Amino acid sequence: MSFFPASLEALIDKFASLPGIGRKSAQRLAFHVLSLPEEEARSFADAIIEAKTSVHCCKICQNLTEGEICSICASDRRDQSTICVVSEPRDVLSIERGREYNGTYHVLHGVLSPMSHVGPDDIRIKELLQRVADNDVEEVIMATNPDTEGEATAMYISRLLKPFQIKVTRLAYGIPVGSNLEFADDATLNRAIEGRTEM
Amino acid sequence: MSFFPASLEALIDKFASLPGIGRKSAQRLAFHVLSLPEEEARSFADAIIEAKTSVHCCKICQNLTEGEICSICASDRRDQSTICVVSEPRDVLSIERGREYNGTYHVLHGVLSPMSHVGPDDIRIKELLQRVADNDVEEVIMATNPDTEGEATAMYISRLLKPFQIKVTRLAYGIPVGSNLEFADDATLNRAIEGRTEM
Repeated sequence: MSFFPASLEALIDKFASLPGIGRKSAQRLAFHVLSLPEEEARSFADAIIEAKTSVHCCKICQNLTEGEICSICASDRRDQSTICVVSEPRDVLSIERGREYNGTYHVLHGVLSPMSHVGPDDIRIKELLQRVADNDVEEVIMATNPDTEGEATAMYISRLLKPFQIKVTRLAYGIPVGSNLEFADDATLNRAIEGRTEM
Repeated sequence: MSFFPASLEALIDKFASLPGIGRKSAQRLAFHVLSLPEEEARSFADAIIEAKTSVHCCKICQNLTEGEICSICASDRRDQSTICVVSEPRDVLSIERGREYNGTYHVLHGVLSPMSHVGPDDIRIKELLQRVADNDVEEVIMATNPDTEGEATAMYISRLLKPFQIKVTRLAYGIPVGSNLEFADDATLNRAIEGRTEM
């Protein structure tokens, strides 16, 4: 049962298919787009086409880029012998924000997840192994999320990297800076005690 | 400071310009669009253009439609002598969902709001007055939202309708069906007592 014109319904459907957008929000977004001036609506549509056609994965690190190789892989100011393995392109942004890390990245585009039928061939593990085999890599830092799937993925990849006899490390666990012990969960607190450092 | 390709940033900006979508959500939506197959991304863009170009306002009631006149105004099974005035197209949907109302609508596309510089000429009041003047209208039901701006708008329009000597009514205030007196606010409860009906 619908009282909206078909093309409006179609647009609402499109918005509702996005992650985290329910039917009501989709309606609001569609109405907003309809209320835009013609050229702005058109430029929204163009932005989708443009991003979809010009953005692809860096040949080396699989991060999103418009060129053949991303700016980090192309930079001679970055330490090309260190690779930080993350699951999503947005994780690169998170680490870059810290302005401390000076190596390169490898974006897996997912994590192993038997529940969602994501196996080793569905994420960019082959490309990482090839990269380690072909280049002079000294250290691989596993920076997948500290959840079950991220852990399993890090563990799986670190085993595959064993034969290369390079240093494979994992991000440190512990209490977040600026947080409060009272609100730290048991698992985190235990890991923070295990990983304690000398002052 | 951005680590995303320019066209991806542009798409994120577009999503972030939508109401209720923050920077983080916009990123998630843009990444989702990038992960879609080419033809689906294209059909999303097409849906925006299609809705924007083919949807416009019904000549009579100003509701959104693809034809010249919407299906409700064109229907001979609807009571054309009763007009329910709402502020937004989605309000038509809300009332239609009840399946009780059999009259027509008039969509104002906004409410009077001095704070946001929305005056009588910015919403479809002229069109309503013209419609009442030209047709055999018996009743106008003011169904704007029960908030300050909706009230003011209903009051303003009802004054303009006075000279036509037709029945002008307002939606009843009271406690919502299925709710709990304990959680009803004072204003609503007072209105419910004022408007009490005989059993």
